Amino acid sequence: MPEITNDKIKIGITHGDINGIGYEVILKMLEDERIPELATPIIYGSGKIAGFYRKMLNLTPVQLNTIDSADDAADDRVNLINVVAEDTKVEPGVATKTGGEAAFASLEAAVRDLREGRIDALLTAPINKDTIQSDTFHFPGHTEYLEASLADGDDSKALMIMCSDRMRVALVTTHSRLADVPSQVTRERVADALRRFSHSLTADFGITGPRIAVLSLNPHAGENGLLGAEETEQIIPGIEDARNERVIAFGPYAADGFFGSGAWTRFDGILAMYHDQGLAPFKLLGMDAGVNFTAGLPFVRTSPDHGTAFDIAGKGEASPASLREALYAAIDIVRNRRRHGEATANPLKKQTIERKPKKEKTDRQPRPDKAGRPETEPTTAPNPEEE
Amino acid sequence: MPEITNDKIKIGITHGDINGIGYEVILKMLEDERIPELATPIIYGSGKIAGFYRKMLNLTPVQLNTIDSADDAADDRVNLINVVAEDTKVEPGVATKTGGEAAFASLEAAVRDLREGRIDALLTAPINKDTIQSDTFHFPGHTEYLEASLADGDDSKALMIMCSDRMRVALVTTHSRLADVPSQVTRERVADALRRFSHSLTADFGITGPRIAVLSLNPHAGENGLLGAEETEQIIPGIEDARNERVIAFGPYAADGFFGSGAWTRFDGILAMYHDQGLAPFKLLGMDAGVNFTAGLPFVRTSPDHGTAFDIAGKGEASPASLREALYAAIDIVRNRRRHGEATANPLKKQTIERKPKKEKTDRQPRPDKAGRPETEPTTAPNPEEE
Repeated sequence: MPEITNDKIKIGITHGDINGIGYEVILKMLEDERIPELATPIIYGSGKIAGFYRKMLNLTPVQLNTIDSADDAADDRVNLINVVAEDTKVEPGVATKTGGEAAFASLEAAVRDLREGRIDALLTAPINKDTIQSDTFHFPGHTEYLEASLADGDDSKALMIMCSDRMRVALVTTHSRLADVPSQVTRERVADALRRFSHSLTADFGITGPRIAVLSLNPHAGENGLLGAEETEQIIPGIEDARNERVIAFGPYAADGFFGSGAWTRFDGILAMYHDQGLAPFKLLGMDAGVNFTAGLPFVRTSPDHGTAFDIAGKGEASPASLREALYAAIDIVRNRRRHGEATANPLKKQTIERKPKKEKTDRQPRPDKAGRPETEPTTAPNPEEE
Repeated sequence: MPEITNDKIKIGITHGDINGIGYEVILKMLEDERIPELATPIIYGSGKIAGFYRKMLNLTPVQLNTIDSADDAADDRVNLINVVAEDTKVEPGVATKTGGEAAFASLEAAVRDLREGRIDALLTAPINKDTIQSDTFHFPGHTEYLEASLADGDDSKALMIMCSDRMRVALVTTHSRLADVPSQVTRERVADALRRFSHSLTADFGITGPRIAVLSLNPHAGENGLLGAEETEQIIPGIEDARNERVIAFGPYAADGFFGSGAWTRFDGILAMYHDQGLAPFKLLGMDAGVNFTAGLPFVRTSPDHGTAFDIAGKGEASPASLREALYAAIDIVRNRRRHGEATANPLKKQTIERKPKKEKTDRQPRPDKAGRPETEPTTAPNPEEE
């Protein structure tokens, strides 16, 4: 773990696929001169490619301070470490092997510095999942590579969290075929995701006693078994296991009623069972504000929730909004972790007379509610069970 | 089929489960005296139970015109046909056998009148799916019962459409366990749903040349087979089949990017593969405005998108907004069908020289796009493929 410190935060930024919109959104974001005041940015990339895109897209010039090591990063400036050869060929909008190699070179260098404590957080621009594959990179995406590179022993597992000002969604299964999802939703995975999610909401987002809503796998929360047994056999036992460890979890809720009734606004986090169930509603609320945070690792990594966008690469149309949000999120999370680390570093000895745990919230059986409402907070909206 | 006519529309309203919020929302809706001016409402229910709820909830009195047959319905008044015994016991918030029997009596009487042309459309208040079951009713819900009772030969099959001012979503599978969904998403079902959806958008919603977006089954639209073969083996061939019959369909699109990029705003209809994929985003946009329309049948039936709401039954908290929207939708659809029926009743003889079909729109191969954008309309939003 990085040391607890009040030093200015250093953020490593990878350029992602050099033929995508990575440089465009990075440079557009860094036009704002207030950003190096908030945290010290260090781009792992190429001054030459940055210049190529700046000229091509006629962007506001950003002064780049070229350095050899993150230790030399200058305060209040945008720093850059060259990690690819001078003659690396850029072809905006085209998936090339060179583009994938350059993406990996950037990621590898930044992850090494992250592991060695030279930077405090990692902000990754999008990669192309095909071209980056090699003997040293054989992962479906950033998340899995980082899990393998940064995990702190066996207990360290990545949990993908999508977060914005309005919603935080974590996924039990991520890039699974829909046909594989039901068998992957097990009691153990539900309980494990709840534990990690609850810990991240506390340590990374600074929420005391976070309340988590768990979505159901089947429509109408399985209708008491009529529409599927996974709720009663896996999800509810998983919730119970987590509750026995003081995780404040409710559900499982039918996804449609949960989002329709406004119940989602009353939770600190939402645990979805699969990709589209969590991410379609999340992104509908506003994709530009969405940030992907890889929780569960000893290091902080965030990314925007868009891809390489080859179709608009080199056209000047890409928005830096999501990357900017991801930068802010990384800064917030590093600060929260430092605070949380300080606050829990020297715990007081336990008193003989302890406060009773809040029985009514954590020790009951969760009750599936088709309306998607937390059982403790009845609402006035009629429940959506009728079709 | 009912005759083509300009007569004032008669809407049959079933009371649903008498222990739910049915009477509350029906009476609250009918407080608005303009409604009988728009269409003639005929409640299939009980004057006594209506009086019970009116007193209990202190509602504005609605003058009920008790009649024996829908043929006697008075214009500009709220009509009621008694279909249950005087001594039927009401227990707000409780699931009882009596409540289920009363719901069925109402539905049976209204469906008979619908079939016989005494009413033009059916508006159903919610039933309880358990208590309504009997020897004569053994269906998972209204939709399936109506399909069995009202279908016009083999070719008449119900298609569930959720609609609001902002979005129209139809489902390929409805109340299926998630584990059963992948095998039910077949080329034939996709093509069939597209045909019915396109026809309904034209005849029921009055849209000329409706554009339909098809969602993918797997995350990221299957990533060209890496995350599932259903897109390439079933969904794309199903889209092609429908396009060969002039259905204007696009996709399949990854659900998260489709809703996140705003692409959904550029289509007249969205075909989702399963319940939560379509309904969670739909309801997130505003449940009160949502209406469930059973398309594909020779008769018009709509319903609100909430359930019996036993938890708030008898409390006066229920909102009639969704029922009101369902009433308006039923009126619109009957009018559109009449217009469409008139417009297509005596087609002109085909000219020798025909206009060429719009090849560029209907005869191409659909191209899956991870960003969820229609291929004909590139947007500036970066595509969301990165996690």
